[in-house]
Amino acid sequence: MLTLASIAEQLGRPFEGNGTIEIHGAAGLREARPSDISYLAIKKYRSHAENTLAGVVIVPESWDGNCQAALIRSPSPEADFSKVALQLAPPAHTPAPGIHPSAVIAEDAVLGEDVSIGPHVVIEQGVLIGRNATIMAGAYVGVHVQIGDDCYLHPNTSILDHCVIGHRFIMHSGSVIGSDGFGYSVNAEGIRTKIPQIGIVKVGDDVELGASSSIDRARFGCTRIGNGVKIDNQVQVAHNVQVGDHAVMVSGVGVSGSAIIGDRVILAGMCGVAGHLTIGEGAIVGGLAGVTKDVPAGKYVYGFPALPFDKASKIQAHVSRLPQLKERIEELEKRLETLEQNKRA
Amino acid sequence: MLTLASIAEQLGRPFEGNGTIEIHGAAGLREARPSDISYLAIKKYRSHAENTLAGVVIVPESWDGNCQAALIRSPSPEADFSKVALQLAPPAHTPAPGIHPSAVIAEDAVLGEDVSIGPHVVIEQGVLIGRNATIMAGAYVGVHVQIGDDCYLHPNTSILDHCVIGHRFIMHSGSVIGSDGFGYSVNAEGIRTKIPQIGIVKVGDDVELGASSSIDRARFGCTRIGNGVKIDNQVQVAHNVQVGDHAVMVSGVGVSGSAIIGDRVILAGMCGVAGHLTIGEGAIVGGLAGVTKDVPAGKYVYGFPALPFDKASKIQAHVSRLPQLKERIEELEKRLETLEQNKRA
Amino acid sequence: MLTLASIAEQLGRPFEGNGTIEIHGAAGLREARPSDISYLAIKKYRSHAENTLAGVVIVPESWDGNCQAALIRSPSPEADFSKVALQLAPPAHTPAPGIHPSAVIAEDAVLGEDVSIGPHVVIEQGVLIGRNATIMAGAYVGVHVQIGDDCYLHPNTSILDHCVIGHRFIMHSGSVIGSDGFGYSVNAEGIRTKIPQIGIVKVGDDVELGASSSIDRARFGCTRIGNGVKIDNQVQVAHNVQVGDHAVMVSGVGVSGSAIIGDRVILAGMCGVAGHLTIGEGAIVGGLAGVTKDVPAGKYVYGFPALPFDKASKIQAHVSRLPQLKERIEELEKRLETLEQNKRA
Repeated sequence: MLTLASIAEQLGRPFEGNGTIEIHGAAGLREARPSDISYLAIKKYRSHAENTLAGVVIVPESWDGNCQAALIRSPSPEADFSKVALQLAPPAHTPAPGIHPSAVIAEDAVLGEDVSIGPHVVIEQGVLIGRNATIMAGAYVGVHVQIGDDCYLHPNTSILDHCVIGHRFIMHSGSVIGSDGFGYSVNAEGIRTKIPQIGIVKVGDDVELGASSSIDRARFGCTRIGNGVKIDNQVQVAHNVQVGDHAVMVSGVGVSGSAIIGDRVILAGMCGVAGHLTIGEGAIVGGLAGVTKDVPAGKYVYGFPALPFDKASKIQAHVSRLPQLKERIEELEKRLETLEQNKRA
Repeated sequence: MLTLASIAEQLGRPFEGNGTIEIHGAAGLREARPSDISYLAIKKYRSHAENTLAGVVIVPESWDGNCQAALIRSPSPEADFSKVALQLAPPAHTPAPGIHPSAVIAEDAVLGEDVSIGPHVVIEQGVLIGRNATIMAGAYVGVHVQIGDDCYLHPNTSILDHCVIGHRFIMHSGSVIGSDGFGYSVNAEGIRTKIPQIGIVKVGDDVELGASSSIDRARFGCTRIGNGVKIDNQVQVAHNVQVGDHAVMVSGVGVSGSAIIGDRVILAGMCGVAGHLTIGEGAIVGGLAGVTKDVPAGKYVYGFPALPFDKASKIQAHVSRLPQLKERIEELEKRLETLEQNKRA
Repeated sequence: MLTLASIAEQLGRPFEGNGTIEIHGAAGLREARPSDISYLAIKKYRSHAENTLAGVVIVPESWDGNCQAALIRSPSPEADFSKVALQLAPPAHTPAPGIHPSAVIAEDAVLGEDVSIGPHVVIEQGVLIGRNATIMAGAYVGVHVQIGDDCYLHPNTSILDHCVIGHRFIMHSGSVIGSDGFGYSVNAEGIRTKIPQIGIVKVGDDVELGASSSIDRARFGCTRIGNGVKIDNQVQVAHNVQVGDHAVMVSGVGVSGSAIIGDRVILAGMCGVAGHLTIGEGAIVGGLAGVTKDVPAGKYVYGFPALPFDKASKIQAHVSRLPQLKERIEELEKRLETLEQNKRA
């Protein structure tokens, strides 16, 4: 618990309201309750501040709206809010170093200093794990997997045989790295025979992988995830995909086999990329888009099939005005009819 | 096994056919085999009843179709069928109360009466679980999680630190509650730094969460799931989303950060909702729709971008008639050409 | 490591280049490095071969392009490449037969010969598993489940009560078979009550199920997956769906309740099929399509709502030419205006 006065003092900002108000939590403007502090960062959400139930709101210095809450004026409301929110949060749990006796660890596995291995973890033969790793309950690390320093595997994650993972990797629960690629040969009767998937997944440094996502191993060679790549929940990355540095994939994205995703590309939520395509450096694919052709570097595409923003929005506008277009055609038909009748007359 | 005569007697309904027919299972009309009982509830599926292989079909009293199966006439075919199906089903398995010796439970965790804790379950420090909980094999419950009475966690589920769950919660295998929200600050080079996700997930009473779904913890404050909410498989609920009471999310839905989903909203399969939007109470979003604007209470929207039903279906009809529209324009061009030539002549 | 000369000799093919080149890995043309071998199978990717960094490329006998790499000419580049890639791959790990002491196996479970049961596996009462099964760490097999011979359950998979699985089944990590169908009765206030899901899932022979996918048990009777069906990652199959033999579902597909998917149907990535529909034998549904009506056998449909290829591509072409169509209407309006003014004059 913090009082309004103590918060304002810590931040070194002026406040308006009763300094003894007690604040127990931090929340967005629309979800906040009277015991919460909140903040307004973007003008667009001005009405949220005017209707909030929060006890205290950190607002820009120029704020001139109507807000029931006590106020703290700040040149950087979001940053100030983050400082306060961190103090009000439950303390983050850091598992103690050590190996839980129920973990099953192959004799020849090499673990770095200060690792924390939780209950029921399984680490197979030939595994190398760097220092300061946290591997939570029920995680599985397959034979000959290599993982760098400072990784954090959340409970019930799976990294399968031979995959190679960089430093500072964070992997959320339910996710899978190194499942087989979806590859079959097909005979004339449509019966499929599995093609051995003998490649691996190679993940760079500073990568985060969300919950219930899956990254398939390569048919041969590597499925590659670059440095600094951030992948959200429920994402699928197929075999042999190559993802550049600092690319972002939001929840629900699917990338088909052998696609190349350039550096700093952003794939917005639930978009799909067809196989063997190249998404150029810095391109952005909109939410729910379906990409069926290469996307040049720096372009923003959306829709299905995905088109460049200008073209897609122009076509979309035309589509939404189709009823009027039809009326204009009907009007033309009537006027033409009149002219033709006059002529015949 | 039940005979037709014994089924009809139990239900107190008349039957037509050989009363000694033996029924071993219950199935839909199209999947049924001669040893199955089935039912017809909706006229629309009349042809399914006429083509079924089922041995017995429960039909409405007014049924006058051609059906090879023996018949039971009923004023409520679906309810009667459900009674019979329950008897024919394999007995539901109820794990015995008790704690499996392989479960790892923190000393200070508090478990209610009559809990059943399966093998390899992990329950961390500070956890509170109500009475009559069933926690199946491999489930993980993080530090300071609180769970109400009568919950059922299926195998290999994960509930992470500090989340709070109501009574009668059912969670299906592979699902995750409390994974980190997808939040980063970005510098000018497009390099992302993780923003600590210090909030929790708060789940109301009578909620069911399907398999392989994920609900992210809030950046701060709560991701909130109301009472009576039913969530299907493969669903993603992002950080700070607020879901009202009795809302429904069908398989494959994705809800982006800080969206507000009103009471009794229905999000049909594989639709997506963009961040910070509000879906008003009782609104319905169609399957595969992409919602890019607020949806007023009670509205039905679909398509991408999602539009109100009337508008969306009108535009869709216009789109499907574009070939004819083009022909009308060509026809106009010809007639106009004729008029112009006549005039010149 | 293999030299170019030794590879060519093994394959019985001529080579062009320095026979002592050392090859350590196999990779696609675009991801290959100088120590890799690659191949060109399809003319379409000719430019990839001309720009590859691979040390050796296996090309068609008729190859006449410019490629920096050493070459092996072959009448079947892909098959030859696969042979070499298998030799260069890390040796596949085969877990030794036996039962890990940490596995928890019900006394009355019946396991065939030569099974390998990993750490922390749970096998419940009444389970029957055929010979030569591999059940990896953390997998869960519920009461009375039956599994045929030669199955492979990857780590952290879950097969729930009473489900029946054929021979040679492969199940990837994080996947779930037998979660409850999404079925509720609804009262006038929109409050839902769970309908018991008392059916099972029945899976044929030679089926593969990808990572983080889920197949719901039937409300009653069976959710049925035919023989030879291949299902990718992140796929959802709802209760009572009937999937024919040799059907294929690519990543991200969602099939709603009671749909019938015919033999050899292909559902491409991220498409959705609404409930109770029939997709006829051999039909193909395009990526990201939304199927809202039955699809006749052998048809290829795509888009939302999904339409037959001819119709869908015609409409799509019309949509993309809407700007021109509007210009033609404006032109018509001007010309008509002129005629009308002349007439008035």
